[in-house]
Amino acid sequence: MATKYVYINDTFITEDKAALLITDLAIQRGYGIFDFFKTIGGKPIFLEDHLDRFYHSAHKMHLNIAYSREELKSILAELMEKNDLPDSGIRITLTGGYSTDGYLLPDKQNLIITQQHFLMDLELNTRGIRLLTYDYQRQLARMKTIDYAMAIWLQPFIKENNADDVLYHHNGQVKEVPRANFFIVSEQGEVITAKGDVLPGVTRKNLLSLENHELKITEREFTLEELQNAREAFITSTTKHILPVLQIDGRPVGDGKAGKISEQLLALLVEKVKRN
Amino acid sequence: MATKYVYINDTFITEDKAALLITDLAIQRGYGIFDFFKTIGGKPIFLEDHLDRFYHSAHKMHLNIAYSREELKSILAELMEKNDLPDSGIRITLTGGYSTDGYLLPDKQNLIITQQHFLMDLELNTRGIRLLTYDYQRQLARMKTIDYAMAIWLQPFIKENNADDVLYHHNGQVKEVPRANFFIVSEQGEVITAKGDVLPGVTRKNLLSLENHELKITEREFTLEELQNAREAFITSTTKHILPVLQIDGRPVGDGKAGKISEQLLALLVEKVKRN
Repeated sequence: MATKYVYINDTFITEDKAALLITDLAIQRGYGIFDFFKTIGGKPIFLEDHLDRFYHSAHKMHLNIAYSREELKSILAELMEKNDLPDSGIRITLTGGYSTDGYLLPDKQNLIITQQHFLMDLELNTRGIRLLTYDYQRQLARMKTIDYAMAIWLQPFIKENNADDVLYHHNGQVKEVPRANFFIVSEQGEVITAKGDVLPGVTRKNLLSLENHELKITEREFTLEELQNAREAFITSTTKHILPVLQIDGRPVGDGKAGKISEQLLALLVEKVKRN
Repeated sequence: MATKYVYINDTFITEDKAALLITDLAIQRGYGIFDFFKTIGGKPIFLEDHLDRFYHSAHKMHLNIAYSREELKSILAELMEKNDLPDSGIRITLTGGYSTDGYLLPDKQNLIITQQHFLMDLELNTRGIRLLTYDYQRQLARMKTIDYAMAIWLQPFIKENNADDVLYHHNGQVKEVPRANFFIVSEQGEVITAKGDVLPGVTRKNLLSLENHELKITEREFTLEELQNAREAFITSTTKHILPVLQIDGRPVGDGKAGKISEQLLALLVEKVKRN
């Protein structure tokens, strides 16, 4: 396998050498943000949406990106050229930076861009996944921070319960999955995703802006009870597109199979990805 | 200034070279724990308490420490000898480790030990500090994780409001300060610190186990209302011992000066530190 390059603070280096000094606030205090997009056949998908969110997360988290959007795009283009991985995932990480006392946020942050081979599956995964509900509200939930402490901590719990991931809820309201947004098709056929303190996912955004009125999605709070009566459920993310949720806490969702609306929405999403 | 050494994964290196590869789960997902103790005149203070907590945090967070307690102690002794900093703070950090996919917790973690000069002040700081109340419950609160995302994020808010730090409360209950436990002396003269989802601080523990019955401390939930009527308030930590809180949300605590009970408790604590 060819050596992969990483962009880190103004230089391209090989990934085996990409390191941060331990005074960085990600290592000291878990402070940083990131974004992640895919490329299909060398073309970045929904890049503008991801850059919008990345600059927004940085601003809200008091972090400085040393590059204009155009500069960042040309760095991304150069990295893609060097790595020659047409089907890939690209992660842009901005850490708190080197802090002299390990606590105060410095003015200069550390920027890291990595690329991995990743081949997107455009078909519906009809095997779907099993979730466990868990009471938790992500902190600073509308920014894409590096904080996945709860999700990592829950890995053994998920494994012990023969599940694939957790579904966060709080104060009776359904929220999201650690790395994906969550949707249901209600008893009445309404497609719903949580509003408020959840990550504004890029796939979620692109689904919400679909112009098909039969499949209009409502963004609103919804309860664990509505979830129990859902006909279908699915998660959305950059690497999953739409992935059916077939079981929650050991009970089947609807008839326990991938649903028709999930499939229709995926077709519309894939169309949008191809037009991108 | 002499070069300082850092212990990182089985080797002593100079601090300017101490780095982690970017695949570490602290950088990728904010996952790790640490502990911090001070040395006075070359002697570690409350070391057993800190090691108890460090091993406990590791276990609860599913992280492995590759060394027995005795091995870790001899590494600490060697580091102290190399650095020759009799008055210091020593931080032991255990990060999630190098993850092949940036998400799954590996079996092997990364251990980092750093030492900085730090001279402990044994007198009461009568200037005290000013706090701002903020509604927040720390996640995984009883383990000493590296997650200070909220505290770092609040730094500009604290500065804008001419305060020194925040005081977390949640559901009406007073909790803790980001890097310290919080105590009040109630209207009735009862010394109280929060019970439950707060960090089990080592200074807090040593105060709770004082055998002076006149200054017995109660560990229980207490409300923002009780806080409003408090005669005295103070925080405790390894680097602060006891530090009076003179103002909360711009209003003075009691008469707005360092209190008598804070002073008496500090004297008892310093005695314990010296006996250690």
